Amino acid sequence: MESVTYAPIGVVRSPYQQPRDVPPPTGEGRPWVAGRVDLEADYSPGLRDLAGFSHAWLLCHFHRSEGHSLEVVPPWDGIARGLFATRSPRRPNPIGLCLVAIEAIEGNALFVLLQDICDGTPLLDIKPYIPEGVSDEQLRLGWLEGKITRR
Amino acid sequence: MESVTYAPIGVVRSPYQQPRDVPPPTGEGRPWVAGRVDLEADYSPGLRDLAGFSHAWLLCHFHRSEGHSLEVVPPWDGIARGLFATRSPRRPNPIGLCLVAIEAIEGNALFVLLQDICDGTPLLDIKPYIPEGVSDEQLRLGWLEGKITRR
Repeated sequence: MESVTYAPIGVVRSPYQQPRDVPPPTGEGRPWVAGRVDLEADYSPGLRDLAGFSHAWLLCHFHRSEGHSLEVVPPWDGIARGLFATRSPRRPNPIGLCLVAIEAIEGNALFVLLQDICDGTPLLDIKPYIPEGVSDEQLRLGWLEGKITRR
Repeated sequence: MESVTYAPIGVVRSPYQQPRDVPPPTGEGRPWVAGRVDLEADYSPGLRDLAGFSHAWLLCHFHRSEGHSLEVVPPWDGIARGLFATRSPRRPNPIGLCLVAIEAIEGNALFVLLQDICDGTPLLDIKPYIPEGVSDEQLRLGWLEGKITRR
C-alpha cells in the first residue's frame, strides 16, 4: 500500500527533554505536568471553540522513537506482550495518542497539562476528547486487568 | 518542520463503501457494524495479547478525505466551529482515531465492530483501548455539551 506523508502542524513543549525523563505509568496513570502546544500560526483559526472542552487528544509523531519489535516487555510485570496490545512508543508508525487537559488557549498557543510527551515532539493533529461510551460491563483490559484503574 | 512518512500496516474492510454511507452521529454515537482489519502478515505476531481487550483504537489514514477548512459546520446545529474542536475527517493531516470492539483475532485478521470507517481505509496503528480516567466533574464537552452522552 502507498505510503502517506504528513506535515506537522505544530510542536509540543514539555518539561521532559527525553523519553527517559517521562515517569513510568502507575495504576492511576502518570502525573500531569504543565506544557504547551505551539501551533503553526496559520492554523490558529481552527482552535476556535476548543477551549470549551476540558481535554483533547494530541496525535504526535514520536520523533525520538527508533525501530520497533513485535514483542515488547512493558514496565509492569516483566512479561513479553504483542506490540499492538501495548502502548510502546516503538511502533512501525510511531504515532502517539496523547490525552492533554486544556488550561487555556491564547492565539496559536495551547496551555495544557500533559502526561507523556517529550519536548520538541512534532504535532500531527488535535481532536476534542469525547467519552467513548464503553460501559464497565463491556470493558475488558486484557493483560492490564487489575494493573490500572477501570475508570 | 520536517514531514513524516508512514507505511500502512494493513487495511480496514467495512460495509461502508464511501464516506456518505456512514450514518451521521447521534447523541449515543453511531451504530456498530461488523468489519475486519487485514493486517500485513508480517505484523501478526504483534497481535498477541490483544484479544484480551474488549476495544482497540485504530489510527487510520482517511484516504477519501480531500483538503480541509479551518472552519467546519458539523451535522448537529448548523453552527460553524473551529476545525480542531470537531472530528471532521477533512483535516491538515487526515488521521482518523477510530474505536472498534474486538470480536475475534485469527491469524492476521481482526474481526471487529466499527462505527465510522470506510472500506479500503489504510491502517497506520492499533493500540489497546484503556480508560483515560477523566471524571464526570472534570469533563467539559464545549459546543457538544447536551448533544452527546457524557459516559
